[in-house]
Amino acid sequence: MSAGTIWGVGLGPGDPDLMSLRADRLLRETRHVAYFRKSGRTGHARRIAEGRLCADAVEYPMDYPVTTEIPVTDPAYTAQLAGFYAQASDHLAGLAQSGADVVVLCEGDPFFYGSFMHLHSRLKDRVPVQVVPAITGMSAAWTATDQPITWGDDVLTVLPATLPEDELARRIADSDAVVVMKIGSNMPKLRAALAWAGRAQETWLVQYASQSGQQVMRLSEADEAQMPYFTIALIHGQGRRP
Amino acid sequence: MSAGTIWGVGLGPGDPDLMSLRADRLLRETRHVAYFRKSGRTGHARRIAEGRLCADAVEYPMDYPVTTEIPVTDPAYTAQLAGFYAQASDHLAGLAQSGADVVVLCEGDPFFYGSFMHLHSRLKDRVPVQVVPAITGMSAAWTATDQPITWGDDVLTVLPATLPEDELARRIADSDAVVVMKIGSNMPKLRAALAWAGRAQETWLVQYASQSGQQVMRLSEADEAQMPYFTIALIHGQGRRP
Repeated sequence: MSAGTIWGVGLGPGDPDLMSLRADRLLRETRHVAYFRKSGRTGHARRIAEGRLCADAVEYPMDYPVTTEIPVTDPAYTAQLAGFYAQASDHLAGLAQSGADVVVLCEGDPFFYGSFMHLHSRLKDRVPVQVVPAITGMSAAWTATDQPITWGDDVLTVLPATLPEDELARRIADSDAVVVMKIGSNMPKLRAALAWAGRAQETWLVQYASQSGQQVMRLSEADEAQMPYFTIALIHGQGRRP
Repeated sequence: MSAGTIWGVGLGPGDPDLMSLRADRLLRETRHVAYFRKSGRTGHARRIAEGRLCADAVEYPMDYPVTTEIPVTDPAYTAQLAGFYAQASDHLAGLAQSGADVVVLCEGDPFFYGSFMHLHSRLKDRVPVQVVPAITGMSAAWTATDQPITWGDDVLTVLPATLPEDELARRIADSDAVVVMKIGSNMPKLRAALAWAGRAQETWLVQYASQSGQQVMRLSEADEAQMPYFTIALIHGQGRRP
């Protein structure tokens, strides 16, 4: 029997209409679907796929053992996640070795800050693995602001808000266009960094880009106490334009 | 009569199977299609759309008056392009004012270094304009290398190779992950900047990502004399991974 393929399928920013033709087809055809989720939740990727899966598709939810309960810098966090990814990879490798193709549902683009990469690195030398790229959350966010992110020779810097405040500030000051991801509880630190860099007035926030509940606002209008995980901050480049 | 809408529709990196469901539907339904092209060529965006347009769709090719014949820093370049974008915008605004919806075919993502932004800025206060985001060429490029571009807290910097060598070198040295666009004839300068930054050995090149003729190679294997416009250089981040 020949081995099946593990497909890491990017579903895009959230609006199912923004998934690729290839992703849509793979979802409709597959008999085996796996996805990450916070324990007890539907899972964001699974929600994007709703209505496209075969009635007889077998689902394999992969429940994170921990999300924000332990700091990512704690060795216990790394140990728990490493064990979890190893176990999930073993399970998927077993399915592929038995001849099954498996679609792993991925929010956004799998190779851009995605969880699938932790399976990919553990699977790629064991069974066939294919990745389908997708529209990123940041593309949906700048589209929601109705302004281009980069013109001409603009430099774009993508920053996780988890970085130290002084590093955020230095890099925000040194780039034409800026995208900040992973904001959540880092909003007060990010606000301070933007102020230090003198760019708070230019900053936009987009919550739930392309999803129901999408919100677009200037930083100056934002209520810091209400910052969901799916928040992206943007500073648009102002480069050369004929 | 109510005005029609100008749709800036991102078609993605080149493989038609990677366009979004929304883009595919808009292409199949529209009666008016506009697209940029180099004079005398089919046009890359038009080629991606091949086979999806209605038989009776009216096409409006927009031929760039100049591409690489004049340096972008020459005032004559700016003047010619500004006149061209103004004329194209007037034409599209006229169509929308007469009630027609028009799809403008855009390679990649329209708001990420795309030509559509030059129409968008001239049209948005005159007629309804909508933008459909898409998979970027850089997403297709890092997917083609079969390696994630960013892990954990990695910083990603996107650089146009048109920047001065010392600025390229400084920014390449200062980022975890790097994407370089607009390479073409800037390859010798980029190679020097990568060497100065000590990162030449980590650099990958992807030509025609997701298109027929896709090539993936290390910088060290590349023949500099053969560098097409659709070349993207990548340095993958090596950040935290459980």
